[in-house]
Amino acid sequence: MTDIEYGDLVRIKKDGIEYCGIVMPSTTDDTTVLKLDNGYNIGVNIDEKTYVDRIKSKKNIGVSISNNKNQNHIVGLNEYYDNDLTGEKTTKRKDLPNVSVIFTGGTIASRIDYNTGAVTSQVKADELIRAIPELSDIAIISTEQLFNILSENMSPKNWVDIARSVYDKIKKGSYGVVIAHGTDTMGYTASALSFMLRMPVPVVLVGSQRSSDRPSSDSYMNMICATKVATSDISEVSVVMHGTVSDDFCLIHRGTNVRKMHTSRRDTFRSINSIPIGRINYPALGIDLFSDRYKKRGGEDLRLYDEIEEKCAIIKFYPGCDPNIIDFFVDEGYKGLVIEGTGLGHVSSSWISHLKQNIPIVITSQCINGRVCDRVYDTGRMMIKAGVIDCEDILPETALTKLMWVLGQTNDLEEVKRLMKTDIRCEISKSSRSYSF
Amino acid sequence: MTDIEYGDLVRIKKDGIEYCGIVMPSTTDDTTVLKLDNGYNIGVNIDEKTYVDRIKSKKNIGVSISNNKNQNHIVGLNEYYDNDLTGEKTTKRKDLPNVSVIFTGGTIASRIDYNTGAVTSQVKADELIRAIPELSDIAIISTEQLFNILSENMSPKNWVDIARSVYDKIKKGSYGVVIAHGTDTMGYTASALSFMLRMPVPVVLVGSQRSSDRPSSDSYMNMICATKVATSDISEVSVVMHGTVSDDFCLIHRGTNVRKMHTSRRDTFRSINSIPIGRINYPALGIDLFSDRYKKRGGEDLRLYDEIEEKCAIIKFYPGCDPNIIDFFVDEGYKGLVIEGTGLGHVSSSWISHLKQNIPIVITSQCINGRVCDRVYDTGRMMIKAGVIDCEDILPETALTKLMWVLGQTNDLEEVKRLMKTDIRCEISKSSRSYSF
Repeated sequence: MTDIEYGDLVRIKKDGIEYCGIVMPSTTDDTTVLKLDNGYNIGVNIDEKTYVDRIKSKKNIGVSISNNKNQNHIVGLNEYYDNDLTGEKTTKRKDLPNVSVIFTGGTIASRIDYNTGAVTSQVKADELIRAIPELSDIAIISTEQLFNILSENMSPKNWVDIARSVYDKIKKGSYGVVIAHGTDTMGYTASALSFMLRMPVPVVLVGSQRSSDRPSSDSYMNMICATKVATSDISEVSVVMHGTVSDDFCLIHRGTNVRKMHTSRRDTFRSINSIPIGRINYPALGIDLFSDRYKKRGGEDLRLYDEIEEKCAIIKFYPGCDPNIIDFFVDEGYKGLVIEGTGLGHVSSSWISHLKQNIPIVITSQCINGRVCDRVYDTGRMMIKAGVIDCEDILPETALTKLMWVLGQTNDLEEVKRLMKTDIRCEISKSSRSYSF
Repeated sequence: MTDIEYGDLVRIKKDGIEYCGIVMPSTTDDTTVLKLDNGYNIGVNIDEKTYVDRIKSKKNIGVSISNNKNQNHIVGLNEYYDNDLTGEKTTKRKDLPNVSVIFTGGTIASRIDYNTGAVTSQVKADELIRAIPELSDIAIISTEQLFNILSENMSPKNWVDIARSVYDKIKKGSYGVVIAHGTDTMGYTASALSFMLRMPVPVVLVGSQRSSDRPSSDSYMNMICATKVATSDISEVSVVMHGTVSDDFCLIHRGTNVRKMHTSRRDTFRSINSIPIGRINYPALGIDLFSDRYKKRGGEDLRLYDEIEEKCAIIKFYPGCDPNIIDFFVDEGYKGLVIEGTGLGHVSSSWISHLKQNIPIVITSQCINGRVCDRVYDTGRMMIKAGVIDCEDILPETALTKLMWVLGQTNDLEEVKRLMKTDIRCEISKSSRSYSF
């Protein structure tokens, strides 16, 4: 291993990711902290598998950084090098991890500028810190206003944009990513991102249910908790939102298991058919894990699978529901359907003949809780014979995003079936457990 | 008031219902119990508004009853008169109320004949008593096998048949009606019946989640509790099912607020946006009321509103959902639509222009819990301007059955809107409460 020193410009390759930056003073023995050229710090554990190369030694470095217009550095390399490496100012921040906050719109974005009460078109990092000063104790924040739309207007195309932005942030060295998002379709986005990304750092979606002009606003606590989780070792796509109606903790929900379960309550998000990954207490910000079965920081290489098939639909079954609705979608060129059946995953027997299609049809349950795989009744057996895919305890909404994603990876119907029935991102569990049912 | 005596044949008119039968020995001072010619007993509180006419005095009565082939009397008037009025046999049963059990199919019907394990085509009352002997301590049971279908095959036409059968049973003097029904669409049927019937006695839907060959079968306890509730003063359409995974109590859910929330758990039914009417403890069968705000026995005249408009649909919104789906349903001649929007009742703004139709479009929330009326965001305001109807905290499934029922009563769009927004059967509450959220 190259013997590198604080101040050197180095290139490090680990777990498929390449970092290029200046070695910073580190507070721990086993972590090398790099100041990247986008203004981020990143900590890397250097072991025998890590490739390290010194590009320039400390004394030969000039001051040269790229100015990324989309990012508002709290501390650019320029000033950091000038001030901090020479021992002046901003010393408080030097060992904090770098967290990217991507704003997409929604209630939480609309109150960052709480002086005007209006939606700001561009949330700058310093505005965010001014609104929530606690964040500067947790991380060095960079922000991006990716777009500014209410989440009911979010489409699969937006998921692709978000996934690409997250990928870029991590590739450039972000220690964790926070996505501020409207709550209405946050569950859909969280599950879509879960399939579209493999990553070595946390990706945390956060929102708020109450605007900041209300005493009960949840935006500050949620943002603080989400940012802290982004610096943790929970390297999953998660949703961090109030766990109760009090300001006592946020729950850390896995992206494929989470659902908005109340129109207005602050603890609206619930993990369904699973327990949350953990909780983060407020204001102490300690994390209590509910299980150790989660992806750990660095455990996965960064990858982006941004091909998805948008022509998929959810059909909710109800008594009297006309099976011709299936033919309508097939005729319209849809490539996959998710049916929200009743109970264990049933539809009327008048539907059976319509279920034989050349596109995948996934059956889920409008009960929301529980699994559909228990084919004990005639209807269920006939449905399986007709070719429907049942995916045990997957949420209907997650079944939709997964089907879109799977169809982006393959057109082979048998392979689609196989992937849909395979647990990829904890969307299917061997035994359904529940925190709150 | 006519001075009537035990053994007289009398005609009594009260609350719009006419009873004709033989006066029985009564255990309470203020209730006159009649033995009707269909084999039922009924208790009537006779007050100054009650019309009473003696047709024949005790000594002049001959033995004459109609034999209804669809009903299997435990004790027909013939044998009752012969045995009981003369003081012999069946004395244990003489003061028990008459409860009609209507079998429609589903898991609970499939295990009454638990010797064969097969679905019986006709559940006779004596078979039911043999399977669940405790029932004979609660009521005099008459049974009818109305049909024998799994509830995923239940259609609005079946709701009409059930409503008519319940109406007939009550008209003929039933003290309470139990409907054994598959659990999958029990919530839909319960809410449909809530709108289609006004009645002075309890109408209780019951089912089971586990077949009788499993040690954890819930069929016996549920049937016992449901029958007991049918003899109570809770004169509502209710669903009586396990309240927990233990055999400790059943919850009594109001028909318009109840939803199947788990594919397999025995305590699958939950009251949403409301607390249940009460619970019935097992095996003691005492009822604990959670509120006294329920319709009391005799508080409502018997009426049947069996006109419903079947051409109504639920559309579940999801990110990327094509608004042309609305035009598809309108083109297909649908008379009303219910949209399951996101959060507070939102859809993509690309939907707004499609929401302006000449048919009623009701907006509900896929969150299930909470209300949709909080039009604080642009999308919500535009939707209201486009003419959508929001009904506060009504369940999507109840919104569908209510819309079908309202369109059966009127074609006037303004009147439809008014009725949809009016709380008729506790489907809309002033403030949402929850037992379990």
